[in-house]
Amino acid sequence: MLPYKSLIQVERKAPVALHIQVCNNFIALITNGTLQPADILPSSRVLAELIGINRNTVKLAYEELVSQGWAESIERKGVFVLSKLPIRSKTLLPETGKSNSPKEAFIWTNNFEKATPSDDLQKTVLAIDDGFPDVRMAPVDVLMREYRSLSRRFHGRNFLKYGSSMGSEHLRTSICNYLSHSRGLVVAAENILITKGSQMGIYLAAQLLLNSGDNIAVGISNYGSADDTFRHSGANLLRMPVDDNGMDVDFLEETLQHKKIKAVYIIPHHHFPTTVTMSMERRLKLLNLAKEYRFAIIEDDYDFDFHYDNKPYLPLASIDHHHNVIYIGSISKTFAPALRIGFMTGSSAFIGAASSLRQLIDKQGDTLLEEAFAVLFDDGEMERHFRKSLKIYKQRRNLFCDILQSDFNDRIEFKIPEGGLGVWTSFDKQIDLIKMAEDASKRGLYIGNGSFYKNESFVTNALRMGFASLNEKEMTEALGILKKIVY
Amino acid sequence: MLPYKSLIQVERKAPVALHIQVCNNFIALITNGTLQPADILPSSRVLAELIGINRNTVKLAYEELVSQGWAESIERKGVFVLSKLPIRSKTLLPETGKSNSPKEAFIWTNNFEKATPSDDLQKTVLAIDDGFPDVRMAPVDVLMREYRSLSRRFHGRNFLKYGSSMGSEHLRTSICNYLSHSRGLVVAAENILITKGSQMGIYLAAQLLLNSGDNIAVGISNYGSADDTFRHSGANLLRMPVDDNGMDVDFLEETLQHKKIKAVYIIPHHHFPTTVTMSMERRLKLLNLAKEYRFAIIEDDYDFDFHYDNKPYLPLASIDHHHNVIYIGSISKTFAPALRIGFMTGSSAFIGAASSLRQLIDKQGDTLLEEAFAVLFDDGEMERHFRKSLKIYKQRRNLFCDILQSDFNDRIEFKIPEGGLGVWTSFDKQIDLIKMAEDASKRGLYIGNGSFYKNESFVTNALRMGFASLNEKEMTEALGILKKIVY
Repeated sequence: MLPYKSLIQVERKAPVALHIQVCNNFIALITNGTLQPADILPSSRVLAELIGINRNTVKLAYEELVSQGWAESIERKGVFVLSKLPIRSKTLLPETGKSNSPKEAFIWTNNFEKATPSDDLQKTVLAIDDGFPDVRMAPVDVLMREYRSLSRRFHGRNFLKYGSSMGSEHLRTSICNYLSHSRGLVVAAENILITKGSQMGIYLAAQLLLNSGDNIAVGISNYGSADDTFRHSGANLLRMPVDDNGMDVDFLEETLQHKKIKAVYIIPHHHFPTTVTMSMERRLKLLNLAKEYRFAIIEDDYDFDFHYDNKPYLPLASIDHHHNVIYIGSISKTFAPALRIGFMTGSSAFIGAASSLRQLIDKQGDTLLEEAFAVLFDDGEMERHFRKSLKIYKQRRNLFCDILQSDFNDRIEFKIPEGGLGVWTSFDKQIDLIKMAEDASKRGLYIGNGSFYKNESFVTNALRMGFASLNEKEMTEALGILKKIVY
Repeated sequence: MLPYKSLIQVERKAPVALHIQVCNNFIALITNGTLQPADILPSSRVLAELIGINRNTVKLAYEELVSQGWAESIERKGVFVLSKLPIRSKTLLPETGKSNSPKEAFIWTNNFEKATPSDDLQKTVLAIDDGFPDVRMAPVDVLMREYRSLSRRFHGRNFLKYGSSMGSEHLRTSICNYLSHSRGLVVAAENILITKGSQMGIYLAAQLLLNSGDNIAVGISNYGSADDTFRHSGANLLRMPVDDNGMDVDFLEETLQHKKIKAVYIIPHHHFPTTVTMSMERRLKLLNLAKEYRFAIIEDDYDFDFHYDNKPYLPLASIDHHHNVIYIGSISKTFAPALRIGFMTGSSAFIGAASSLRQLIDKQGDTLLEEAFAVLFDDGEMERHFRKSLKIYKQRRNLFCDILQSDFNDRIEFKIPEGGLGVWTSFDKQIDLIKMAEDASKRGLYIGNGSFYKNESFVTNALRMGFASLNEKEMTEALGILKKIVY
């Protein structure tokens, strides 16, 4: 007899009935070949004693096996594994859950490098991040109250059903109003798709605009996830110089004279990672080029809401009269990264196609959450949150830059950023950022090692240092630790 | 002077300062060419009177225009549009928000047919849907309480930050336990990716498995969104017959002898739309074929939790010892469609690549919601919900089928489904389903017109009629209306 005591594992506290657990154990033994067709099963009395459960439970399990067509009961002989089952031969017990088999069971395409885990930050107590918001400031409680209250009401319940792949019409209308008043961008609800953060906007635009071999112009330094998304669409990246006024549009113009370009990706407020703002002159010239050469501009404006000294420039989308701009924004960045809400605007035809593609990806967003956000926009809660965080982030930027200036003067170089949540900081060549990050980690401080900003044509010894998520005490402590390492 | 009274529109109740609104209005006039470089702006006194706002507000607006580089102030002469702006010539006022321009501004690929709006159901009072859950039964309030309580706690706050693209580790572990006890599927957390509903699982699997020109085997009738997703990856669909025991695996075997197949998509519990269950014999044979011919099986098992008469068969994934199966499940379908939570399992290498791709699509899920769901699994709330809804849905299925049997006997044909939330109902050829749906709509009843189930090789005069979302009163009313139309 097989060593059933160790082969059959049941868990009394599990919510699944014991006899189903026993039955499932036997099915596993049959399908992995430990039990062969026509093998006899132990009597219910014997098995009950062996594994310490009630005999009737074993009987129920055997009945289940029989009714599912795995076994047959022969009177006065016992219960046998069905003889006609198409089980071939004994196979090794699989290393389930451990890893993929040495030889892959089927062929698939793996173009992805091992992703760096981005959940480190959730577990870290003290971190100089890449420029993330302070989630402690987000009015999550107000949002939850709205969310819960909606789910209790009759009409709110309906938002739990399947909904539109474009997103809540209420939220689209609220965002239209917000875009119009905050940045002169006048669009209708049919021109807006609610996305999961700005990343989904970039993905959808890339999939619709770019085919294998197409060219897209991006900054010589650029947001790495955008680069990866364009490459995933099969596009070639044409790298454009970026200076203190943003992407070099004259260089782009020269390139256009001998190369077809399908799209240009820009982050005019504020270029990633260097945080520079694109000048109005270049914005206008870029729009003119887009019209002349018929390319699309993907304008990633996730940082619009954070501008400390002057009012931000208007987005290109607001002054685009020829519909060349696909405008992408995010509420996740302003509110809390894990609440994935963003939006993209474009012609109704483009937005319609993006919605259709989105239906294949995840059908739709979380309508109830979208409705709750719409209420927060309508009653001014979002605006209050934006203003409050802007004020606090400005104080934090000033303090952060003051400390950098006074304590790290001869080891780093930086410019005070006009907006955004991070300072682009170049470190002395003597400082090895990878080692610095390791040393910091040993002292309880998370800080990036700079690898995220590098690409095949942009190598630098610099970091985007986020100041927004740190209060005064944390900031002093974090930069104190860093100082000990750097000096 | 231009008709500023009608050109400049401000809204006092908007959360954006009046002077910014005036400034944005002027920028729009400049960029659309109504105001040309070197044009003079009206004096602040004149404009203040014309549009009825304070003169100081106009002055502030002009200062903003100057500081943003749109205008220049010349002492004792006035404020002028900057002469060096690269504005070309007057363009027509754009039809912003109305539609895309007659000639597209740029070239993009639109492979999508106009999507049918799926938000009709949110607005409908009475509906015979396609087999959706009754969202009124979901313990949303318990979920929200957990969600809110988490967001208030120190460690919960961290779930608002960026997290893992694989999803909450807590939820992955909870789902591992659930899969092991409910269906003998033993996997580790690294083999699970939390998705946005089962649709994202289908999308990710398709993107990783299928390249342009690859073959995938699907049922002759099939879930249309899956077909669309595979086509979007450039794959050819090979249609396999489906009978009362599910997909015809012998036909598949013959096909494999002369055609290379990368993947097979099946919904063994219960085939869409016909609701049949795949027999255990065919499941085992399919697994053997997958091993022999090295193809992947995409097992879409969104309906596992709904089985009324016998225990459901074990998934193929539970008896797959060669890692050929990518298993896809959904909690959205069991809980509430708009709360997009699903999962896929596979080898850690495959799941790792799927997570990397997912990072390009939307970075990650809503970690806080995932954590709240994990708590509901851990404290048995999900299990209670499953059991409670199973009991109620069984009653509803029985009542629904009783009424169909007694009231529609000579107009329709159907089999009582063993599981799932819908009845596959063939209508008499005399009945035009499109007209029937229109007539029903006039009488306040939503019902599908059958077009969703048709494809190039499957034409039928049948509907999947959902019974689960209707209580007794609603069901009687809905079928009463339908009877009047059919007879």
